[in-house]
Amino acid sequence: MLEFMKQRATLRQYSEKPVSEELLNELLEIACRASNTGNMQLYSIVVTRDAAGKQALAPAHFNQPQVTNAPVVLTFCADLNRYTKWCLQRDAHPGFDNIQSLAYAAIDAVIASQAFCTAAEANGLGICYLGTTTYNADKIIDVLQLPTLVMPIVTISLGYPAAEPSPCERLPLAAILHQEHYHDYSSDDIDKLFFEKENLPANKHYVEINNKQTLAQVFTDIRYTKKDNEFFSETFIETLKKQGFLKLV
Amino acid sequence: MLEFMKQRATLRQYSEKPVSEELLNELLEIACRASNTGNMQLYSIVVTRDAAGKQALAPAHFNQPQVTNAPVVLTFCADLNRYTKWCLQRDAHPGFDNIQSLAYAAIDAVIASQAFCTAAEANGLGICYLGTTTYNADKIIDVLQLPTLVMPIVTISLGYPAAEPSPCERLPLAAILHQEHYHDYSSDDIDKLFFEKENLPANKHYVEINNKQTLAQVFTDIRYTKKDNEFFSETFIETLKKQGFLKLV
Repeated sequence: MLEFMKQRATLRQYSEKPVSEELLNELLEIACRASNTGNMQLYSIVVTRDAAGKQALAPAHFNQPQVTNAPVVLTFCADLNRYTKWCLQRDAHPGFDNIQSLAYAAIDAVIASQAFCTAAEANGLGICYLGTTTYNADKIIDVLQLPTLVMPIVTISLGYPAAEPSPCERLPLAAILHQEHYHDYSSDDIDKLFFEKENLPANKHYVEINNKQTLAQVFTDIRYTKKDNEFFSETFIETLKKQGFLKLV
Repeated sequence: MLEFMKQRATLRQYSEKPVSEELLNELLEIACRASNTGNMQLYSIVVTRDAAGKQALAPAHFNQPQVTNAPVVLTFCADLNRYTKWCLQRDAHPGFDNIQSLAYAAIDAVIASQAFCTAAEANGLGICYLGTTTYNADKIIDVLQLPTLVMPIVTISLGYPAAEPSPCERLPLAAILHQEHYHDYSSDDIDKLFFEKENLPANKHYVEINNKQTLAQVFTDIRYTKKDNEFFSETFIETLKKQGFLKLV
């Protein structure tokens, strides 16, 4: 158990082997055993298997090939709609159209998604998180026909490996961990904690082919620019309003 | 592997058995192997073991006894501070002070927390998520001394079981799952999907002792009221502003 989790890596290339509905549902049942806020289960999972559905989703994920190449795509959504409907049918007065309710529902959706991923990997499947779901939530809402009070949070592509993927590096645990309270980073700390990452041949090569001076510049100038982050923050806030979660702002 | 995940339950009562730092760090290393956005690892984990630290955190978690009774409390935070500092030291121009960056960092923090929980449970430990972290993020920020661009997202109490906890019910998978697109719920669907939950003796008893007519009313009138959700939404938005994530609103 521990060994397989230590060796895991994101899988982007899938074999032709199909993922049976029986196995998928068994893994999803397991995912639903994970913790959730007040046992309200404020999430929904949309399964995309049809080629047309994947094609429709692909642009929302910047056409990352995993979306159309994987046998299964799963979109985990914060869902306050189902629970609100239940409350209204039971003479109760729900108040889940706000950012705090979205926060705990979104956390529950990610808890379920990650429990799913671990269960899937334990069964020989591989996954890739598409970090684009909150960027283009508006487009995903249209494609998946998500009503008010439902917000897509994370998307996973799923399948059997075409080849075993290689784990990529991580910062040393000391970079992430704080004992008793947050210990802010000195410039020496930063140099030490990022040293190994910056000096990996693969990362040095990555800086070169992108014509940058530092690894950090690849991320700020190309991959996660201030301009993009701000643009997608604006559309995210508009989408939160449209889905009914931001009436207070 | 699958069997233990199917049987899992939240653990609220911990034995005296300590959790060694070696095991904790091994589990945290495993948690850091989980997927994250662009391999930026935009999260930090604060470990609270000292009795004084737990006492200080307890009010922020509405004095739920798990905080002071568990040997270890972990607070998983979205952390854009460390990465921003690294970028600034490497002649790069970071732009992570916005809601979109917080969204992907928060997702990464929860992915790490849930990978941690599964690894912990595989090793005989038990966990409880404290669903109060986003409610009282402002108080947790003070206690843990979190700087700007760091936001607490989820908190876990951790330890060995004093007794084996019992799993509680879940909605049928059909309540959560949507094929190809979201299928909104008819009133018949709601009645069917919540039938088993509403008719469990434990839940019927829960309605009675709370002097309510329906299970939903326990949640809307007592546990997750509109008033509370709206109050904590306001403090959440103020905290997002204070931590530097909402300059655009």
